[in-house]
Amino acid sequence: MSLLLDNQFVELPPDKSVDTKLFLEAVSHLPSFFDCLGSKVFGIIKSDINGNITKIRAVYVQDPEKYVTLQHIVEAEREAHAAEWPKVGATLALMWLKRGLRFIQVLLQSLADGERDENKPNLIRVNVIKAYEQALKKYHGWIVQKIFDAALHAAPYRSNFLKALSKGEEVKEEDCLANVRLFLVNYSTTVDAIYEMYTNLNAELDYTV
Amino acid sequence: MSLLLDNQFVELPPDKSVDTKLFLEAVSHLPSFFDCLGSKVFGIIKSDINGNITKIRAVYVQDPEKYVTLQHIVEAEREAHAAEWPKVGATLALMWLKRGLRFIQVLLQSLADGERDENKPNLIRVNVIKAYEQALKKYHGWIVQKIFDAALHAAPYRSNFLKALSKGEEVKEEDCLANVRLFLVNYSTTVDAIYEMYTNLNAELDYTV
Ligand SMILES: CCCCCCCCCCCCC/C=C/[C@@H](O)[C@H](CO[C@@H]1O[C@H](CO)[C@H](O)[C@H](OS(=O)(=O)O)[C@H]1O)NC(=O)CCCCCCCCCCC
Ligand SMILES: CCCCCCCCCCCCC/C=C/[C@@H](O)[C@H](CO[C@@H]1O[C@H](CO)[C@H](O)[C@H](OS(=O)(=O)O)[C@H]1O)NC(=O)CCCCCCCCCCC
Repeated sequence: MSLLLDNQFVELPPDKSVDTKLFLEAVSHLPSFFDCLGSKVFGIIKSDINGNITKIRAVYVQDPEKYVTLQHIVEAEREAHAAEWPKVGATLALMWLKRGLRFIQVLLQSLADGERDENKPNLIRVNVIKAYEQALKKYHGWIVQKIFDAALHAAPYRSNFLKALSKGEEVKEEDCLANVRLFLVNYSTTVDAIYEMYTNLNAELDYTV
Repeated sequence: MSLLLDNQFVELPPDKSVDTKLFLEAVSHLPSFFDCLGSKVFGIIKSDINGNITKIRAVYVQDPEKYVTLQHIVEAEREAHAAEWPKVGATLALMWLKRGLRFIQVLLQSLADGERDENKPNLIRVNVIKAYEQALKKYHGWIVQKIFDAALHAAPYRSNFLKALSKGEEVKEEDCLANVRLFLVNYSTTVDAIYEMYTNLNAELDYTV
């Protein structure tokens, strides 16, 4: 019934470690989130994120027992590629992936919190801009920021977006937002945990594209 | 010494058929052309084109003897996927790939012909715009066209672009352009032949993204 609830993230254990296999499973459904944005323009974003996931999975399947959690992967790469790390392999892919995940997180949270432009209540521009500013803007040079401004014109109406999240079914807005809130519980904890890991391991970079 | 001449396209036989294996070999070096544009913004374009090539190669390797020329692939897919064709498989990938190839063709030809903005002789904006208009614009909706306008700001200076084409070596401009002209001979014939094939087989689509 709901794109999001069909593919829930699991609750994290007390040590906040993220199980690689379960993470890859849950996250592999997220690129279709970008189809909910309606325009083919976002196909490019979808491919970029799919590429990140493919890269992480490629490392994982080489040795599932060694790479039980995401942190195992990042630490192993720090050993193996000391010179280039963290701008390398699955560490780099996850660095960018988490920003796309944070974008989705902030966008959904902002919708769930009822933030909107009172003059244009059926637009999600304010929510998308907030998500962009918190998740991505600082990693984008001015040209990509301009590209974002152009792409913003392709953002869907709020009603269409919520309908797409409900897989095209006519669900009451409040029910859809309740699903979003439910989804966000474990999802946000997971995304936050990955950010925390990057801080702790000193794996974060702030170069721009 | 020259990015282009290291990976020449071969002369076509009189029937203008394009040998799949040789085409894939020559074309696989072209995505690095986008590195010559200097900005990381074009990495996205490079991935899109790489995706097209990967898709065509994936079909070819299934049965190299059956798919000797590009036309064999397109015709086989017309048989196999009558309902969706030509918006399917390697036919679709080559449809888009040829537009990227035409973009490169027109851009290089325009530089080789000495077309430039007399007021800004070290910019390649006029050449890039010409290439975009002839190869891609009509397949792009207004939002992607706006994105192009923004991306145009990332176009390199003429001198840097020519230097990158010469793999960073200091080559006289005239020598570099002579290489470009040499490269264009077989390259243009190949790209033109693919366009002709799409017209003849009625395989061209004009939907926009
Ligand atoms: C022909 C006409 C056009 C001409 C030119 C057009 C050029 C278009 C350029 C568009 C930029 C699109 C955004 C994509 C940006 C990407 O460049 C960045 C960095 O991408 C990362 O780069 C790394 C190397 O530095 C590795 O390759 C990573 O890959 S690796 O796996 O190999 O390690 C890769 O993800 N990802 C990002 O910024 C992530 C973006 C997430 C987006 C989230 C949603 C935004 C939705 C917006 C809604 C309004
Ligand atoms: C987060 C911030 C940003 C937010 C959002 C950003 C969104 C950015 C969108 C940027 C658009 C970039 C251009 C890419 C466009 C692509 O959409 C198109 C069609 O792409 C095709 O689509 C098909 C389905 O219709 C198949 O999937 C093809 O794939 S298949 O292989 O699967 O069949 C695929 O190539 N390719 C194109 O238009 C080709 C482009 C060639 C470009 C040539 C050079 C231009 C250089 C310009 C120099 C100034």
